[in-house]
Formats: sequence, C-alpha cells, structure tokens
Amino acid sequence: MADINAVATQFTDFYYTSFDRDRSSLEPLYRPESMLTFEGTQLLGTANILEKLKSLPFQNVQHKVTTLDAQPSTNPGAIIVSVTGLLLVDGGENPLQFSQVFQLVPSDGTYFVFNDIFRLNYGA
Amino acid sequence: MADINAVATQFTDFYYTSFDRDRSSLEPLYRPESMLTFEGTQLLGTANILEKLKSLPFQNVQHKVTTLDAQPSTNPGAIIVSVTGLLLVDGGENPLQFSQVFQLVPSDGTYFVFNDIFRLNYGA
Repeated sequence: MADINAVATQFTDFYYTSFDRDRSSLEPLYRPESMLTFEGTQLLGTANILEKLKSLPFQNVQHKVTTLDAQPSTNPGAIIVSVTGLLLVDGGENPLQFSQVFQLVPSDGTYFVFNDIFRLNYGA
Repeated sequence: MADINAVATQFTDFYYTSFDRDRSSLEPLYRPESMLTFEGTQLLGTANILEKLKSLPFQNVQHKVTTLDAQPSTNPGAIIVSVTGLLLVDGGENPLQFSQVFQLVPSDGTYFVFNDIFRLNYGA
C-alpha cells in the first residue's frame, strides 16, 4: 500500500502546513458535499467548513503528526486517513493531543476531502 | 443524521462489549476484504484480523468510549465512525488513550467492518 501511504503523507503535510499558515488556503480541499465534524459540531459544504475553521479562537497553531495510517476505502481510489498528533496553540507549553480522520476522494487528478472528523483527546 | 449516530452507537457498544468479553466473538463483524491497521501493523481478512486481536498480550481489558462521531461515507449506507476513549488493561491504574476509526458497510440487513484503524495515543 505504498502508494496510498504516499498520498496520505503528502496530503497531511499540505493540510497541516496550510492550516497552520493560513486556514483560508484549505478552501480548495473541500467541496459542497464535504462534511466536517469538529469537536462534535457538524458542518456541510466548503463555505460552512471554512467559516468554522477560520473562526477557531487561536492565533498561532502548530500541528505535529505523531501517527499516520491509511487504508483504501470502498470507492475505487478513495482513501481513509487516520492521524493522531499534537496541537501547540498560541505558544502554550502544554500541547493538546488530537485525532483526525479524513476520507480523500480522487477527482480531476487530485483529491478532495469528503469526510473530516476532528477531536481533541483530553487526559483520563 | 440521527440514524447513523444510532447505528454507530449500537455498533460500538456491541464491538467493545464483545472485545472486552471474548475477542473471538468479533469474527462475524469482519469479511475477507476487511482491513485492520493495529498500531501500524496491517492485516487483511477475517482470519488474520482475529488472530491478531486474540494474540494481544493482555488478559483483561475494558474500553471506555469518550467521544463518538459518525458521518455518511461515499458509498450509499456506509458509515465512517471515529472513536476516542480509554483502555484499561489488566486492572492497571493508568488508562491508555486510544483512537479508532471504522468504516461500516451495510450487507444483508446488518453491517460489516470494511476499515478498522486502531492507535494508542501516548502523551506529549
């Protein structure tokens, strides 16, 4: 599964670099049918998703990927990507753990995000 | 999306109760095309997946679900389920955080697990 792992790595590198630099640059990754569940809040479509991402109340954020797993999905070419990692917010010393799941769907020689589920993982 | 949330809750209740009681009882949930990535190890098909699950080196285990999110997948009726939670192993006092992703696919009036990705989340 080397190929899908390469796609997953390339996608997450791009996604988190873009997120941390300028969240509005994530817009081309979403479509009208894209779904985001962010900390339990459900959003549908590019406009709603971008509005949510841009409204998040931190100025500086850095994602560090700890684990990255990919599997082929049911639809030909689609990929399930599961990420766990650390989120450093506004220079805070205590990174937050997060989990994020994407389903990437191929289209026009690239991929868009069909499913996106984000959760912070609080300690026990 | 009340319906898929109900399916996701019913599935995860059944899955973790079965896992914690008798891992071999998970067999009917998998198919020859099912995939499990367990802590980075990739397994394909019911037999390989069950062998892996039954070989895990703990006797008593309890899953506690902290968050559960579900979204419709690309294929009609299929569901992406993302779980975060705590794993209590062999009476240990320090629960481990975990993340798990499933894609459930409808078949014969029930669902089987097409994708399954499991990761422990270690602290920063």
